[in-house]
Amino acid sequence: MKNILEGKTKKLIAQGADEILMVFKDDVTADENGFNPGANKVGFKMDGIGLENLKLSTFFFEKLNATGIKTHFLKSDFDERTMHVRKANLFGNGVEVICRFAADGSFVRRYGQYARKGDLLPAFVEMSLKDDLRNDPMISKDALIAFDIMSDSDYDTLVMLTRQICLVIKNECAKHNLQLIDIKLEFGRDPHTNEIMLIDEISTGSMRVYREGESVEPFELTQTLLSD
Amino acid sequence: MKNILEGKTKKLIAQGADEILMVFKDDVTADENGFNPGANKVGFKMDGIGLENLKLSTFFFEKLNATGIKTHFLKSDFDERTMHVRKANLFGNGVEVICRFAADGSFVRRYGQYARKGDLLPAFVEMSLKDDLRNDPMISKDALIAFDIMSDSDYDTLVMLTRQICLVIKNECAKHNLQLIDIKLEFGRDPHTNEIMLIDEISTGSMRVYREGESVEPFELTQTLLSD
Repeated sequence: MKNILEGKTKKLIAQGADEILMVFKDDVTADENGFNPGANKVGFKMDGIGLENLKLSTFFFEKLNATGIKTHFLKSDFDERTMHVRKANLFGNGVEVICRFAADGSFVRRYGQYARKGDLLPAFVEMSLKDDLRNDPMISKDALIAFDIMSDSDYDTLVMLTRQICLVIKNECAKHNLQLIDIKLEFGRDPHTNEIMLIDEISTGSMRVYREGESVEPFELTQTLLSD
Repeated sequence: MKNILEGKTKKLIAQGADEILMVFKDDVTADENGFNPGANKVGFKMDGIGLENLKLSTFFFEKLNATGIKTHFLKSDFDERTMHVRKANLFGNGVEVICRFAADGSFVRRYGQYARKGDLLPAFVEMSLKDDLRNDPMISKDALIAFDIMSDSDYDTLVMLTRQICLVIKNECAKHNLQLIDIKLEFGRDPHTNEIMLIDEISTGSMRVYREGESVEPFELTQTLLSD
């Protein structure tokens, strides 16, 4: 990896051989209808959302680490708006793992013959390639194996870990009367042990949350989830 | 099913409770670049191609039936441009099973990060929903199961049958120095025995074939494959 990588919502800076500093930006992804965590390009700046997302990510990573789920999280510095994380090897050029508790967004656009918006789904997992140029295409297990991006058992491990992690997040939402609709996660491997670990962030930029059928906006979401 | 169903390239007419008459039309699917078996709408008429496709389908169905693979084929009447087939229950509203021996078309558009046009693939199988409105979206095994379109073992059976069938077709192509790039099949169930069988057609409208790197057009393809 280069020393500095500029992402859509974060800047990544290498810190020695094994660590990365993630700087959380105030940019959010959006589509033609406004803020959309599933969108593929930066839409606009939202002053202060970087720090909020850092706090929310930190909250979830600490919770997950405490339950024994391996993540890349080391520590956060809210003053600097940074998170220190373990360096990870990606699956291919990056794979997004999506977990759905209710049908919405692209899932309904694709499968409207069989699913209506709001239909409950049992922690349904699907994967897409990180590929902005091709709009993050969905990819099957067989294709991931054919391209040598992961093995059959890696895929099953990712599905199992995703369900474990997303249930923790769903339960946190439920405590505040919020419904987690869908969320995307990213995983990598520890370069030394080869263990699979959760990477990237867990924030308003990666989940769709409703309260009584209405989408909850980023600031309201972090403030609600981080309140006692 | 209604008594008469008008498809893009065939008309289906119910014949009693258990049989359907498929009338092969001269319409071919196309996109903005001309004839494309993967396209989703009728592009233009090609005089006489209906009969050619009926002949080619008959040739392959007879060959497959002879090897013990169950298909819906009963008999063809070339004068009437019709094929008599067993009525079948679809998987959901119809699922297309695609088998790829080389990367091309939508596969390269989706997975260009990992596959270049012409890369050999080992009888790679993927499935899409028949849904013109949503452009036949690709669908994973897990989603097919979640929507109750098929079971886990149905999926595995379809993959296995598809590979068997497509190897027969690939070998026929190879006899004439033609390279089968990709092909789509459709399956259904015998309403009486519940057995899975190959349905629809196997014709120039469902396969992409190259000779020395160049696409082979429909008439040339049927005439080559049906020559001794």
